[in-house]
Amino acid sequence: MSARIFNFNPGPAALPLSVLEEIQAEFLDYRGTGMSLLEISHRSKPFTDILNEANGRVERLLGLTEEYHVLFLQGGASTQFSMIPMNFLNMGATADYINTGAWSNKAIKEALLLKRRVNISASSEDRNFCYIPKVFKFTPGAIYVHLTSNNTIKGTQWADYPDTGGEPIISDMSSDILSRPFNIRPFGMIYAGAQKNLGPSGVTLVVIRQDMVERVQDPLPSMLSYKTHVDKNSLYNTPPVFGIYVIGLVLKWLEETIGGLTAMSRINEQKAALMYDYMDENGFYTPTADKDSRSLMNVTFRLPNEDLEKRFVDEALSNGLGGLKGHRSVGGCRASIYNAVTLEAVETLVNFMKEFARANG
Amino acid sequence: MSARIFNFNPGPAALPLSVLEEIQAEFLDYRGTGMSLLEISHRSKPFTDILNEANGRVERLLGLTEEYHVLFLQGGASTQFSMIPMNFLNMGATADYINTGAWSNKAIKEALLLKRRVNISASSEDRNFCYIPKVFKFTPGAIYVHLTSNNTIKGTQWADYPDTGGEPIISDMSSDILSRPFNIRPFGMIYAGAQKNLGPSGVTLVVIRQDMVERVQDPLPSMLSYKTHVDKNSLYNTPPVFGIYVIGLVLKWLEETIGGLTAMSRINEQKAALMYDYMDENGFYTPTADKDSRSLMNVTFRLPNEDLEKRFVDEALSNGLGGLKGHRSVGGCRASIYNAVTLEAVETLVNFMKEFARANG
Repeated sequence: MSARIFNFNPGPAALPLSVLEEIQAEFLDYRGTGMSLLEISHRSKPFTDILNEANGRVERLLGLTEEYHVLFLQGGASTQFSMIPMNFLNMGATADYINTGAWSNKAIKEALLLKRRVNISASSEDRNFCYIPKVFKFTPGAIYVHLTSNNTIKGTQWADYPDTGGEPIISDMSSDILSRPFNIRPFGMIYAGAQKNLGPSGVTLVVIRQDMVERVQDPLPSMLSYKTHVDKNSLYNTPPVFGIYVIGLVLKWLEETIGGLTAMSRINEQKAALMYDYMDENGFYTPTADKDSRSLMNVTFRLPNEDLEKRFVDEALSNGLGGLKGHRSVGGCRASIYNAVTLEAVETLVNFMKEFARANG
Repeated sequence: MSARIFNFNPGPAALPLSVLEEIQAEFLDYRGTGMSLLEISHRSKPFTDILNEANGRVERLLGLTEEYHVLFLQGGASTQFSMIPMNFLNMGATADYINTGAWSNKAIKEALLLKRRVNISASSEDRNFCYIPKVFKFTPGAIYVHLTSNNTIKGTQWADYPDTGGEPIISDMSSDILSRPFNIRPFGMIYAGAQKNLGPSGVTLVVIRQDMVERVQDPLPSMLSYKTHVDKNSLYNTPPVFGIYVIGLVLKWLEETIGGLTAMSRINEQKAALMYDYMDENGFYTPTADKDSRSLMNVTFRLPNEDLEKRFVDEALSNGLGGLKGHRSVGGCRASIYNAVTLEAVETLVNFMKEFARANG
């Protein structure tokens, strides 16, 4: 082991060190097969076991009933933005969308590109997306309501999901999936690009309820139909084998080393509190999101000026703290503290922030 | 290093051992970044360098002019089957398809699902796809002709591509990409799932000519438009970072260790000749493809009966030769001898075949 940094990247992001070490150790000969995992058939027993185990862990961690299907797809959340209206939204029917920033906006844009009818049930655009809306106008008879559970760019996150009165929620959970327990019953579908809380980029986790599968509009291109992937258990074509394997190891770490979502959530709350409490008290750093909408995953903040922000990011990196630059569209600073970012990493960051504030305050 | 087997898997398939060792060595700390490659941002300099270098290597290896764009996408060849007609084929216009087996068929099926007009220019279905057609009926004014360059299941491969009189060829080259030099000029687009000759599953290489990009029908879902990916140089959304990195290393091995496509082709011909020459001469094993249509990548053959075939596959595996079972849809045996399968591996296989024939002949 050489000098690993503390990694606050927004995604692709930090992975548990123990998982990386396990992958490295078995990289040339996967568990006695005489092959690297990269060289193994997706129809072989070793990979079937990996896939089934990963499915089972998602089911247990999310408390899924048999009504829900677990899929591992490709193309990122961006492909889901199109697949959702293609699969569920008849021409002429309406879907509700809640707009909390860039990613919600992209989902809306793709539905409109497909000429589907979209109602914006709520938006926080009036204050530059620094909060999560509390008032909604749901459309009677709407097929679904779409929301982004956590906004990486603006550093906001839903504390509680809205009561939609039975209208299925579809949620992009790319940046906070499996970071805390939640009740999945109101959700018709959730999806997440893996590269923040689950594993490497190139895999999308989709959890879909059977009644949504039954709504799927035929005929769709095979790869764009959820039905295809449900029928074939994510094996319609060659899946991203390595990515699913890494996700399986991360899920195992989450269940067996961390102890599940309640334990994970406690650690995540502790990490976020360390940062927000210090910033609220000190005043040199200003969190950008409203207090009741703050993300436990992406802590976004400003320093007194842009020169200081640049110096902060650079000096942090020379102190072994990487990935603290804000998104290019908004500037400022951001610490992404996903599941795999340790309490030690956040403590080290807060100590650095204190020193930097003393030296530059 | 423990006991690595000789791997004849049809895909995911063998990778060069030196590439696997390099990945393993830098797995926890990618070149002094203090992070695993899995944890690195796709907008970072290290990954930008990886992507640019991989692009450049594809350009050099294929001898591409500036007219061609290199893309790394997701979703496998199966997604391309739909994207091709969606992007290029207006309702009412015609595309020619040549049917040489299961994969060609899937491409045709997806075009028909989209209600596009398809003309079958040639087919080898009359003799169960054991040969490559030599007579074609191209449609005047057709937008493109689609063909599968190598057929993994039936073990056939185009020796020379047809003269289409200027009609752009689009080819699924998943199973023989970069295995030999060829003239790319007649091709409007080629594409290949990575998991046979390029790297791990989960990345699709697409090489597309500018005049084809200009044909793209607006508006398409963003992720399904070639224009999106050309405009953003494969970075419209988070790409499969790890897969592209591995591909980059395989391309480097191909250029620098092997010495390019002419050298690779010579080795591939030598490997295939070892197998076919022995089988033609001995008679115990029967190659399934016509002589002039035989694949240099997937050598398909039968033994005198199914019991012997099963015993052959099992005994080979206990002798460290894996992946020799034929595709589940056709049975028999198959040795996939892609670029990364060494001459030594094939020699060992042929020696085993000789012993097995002696013992069971």
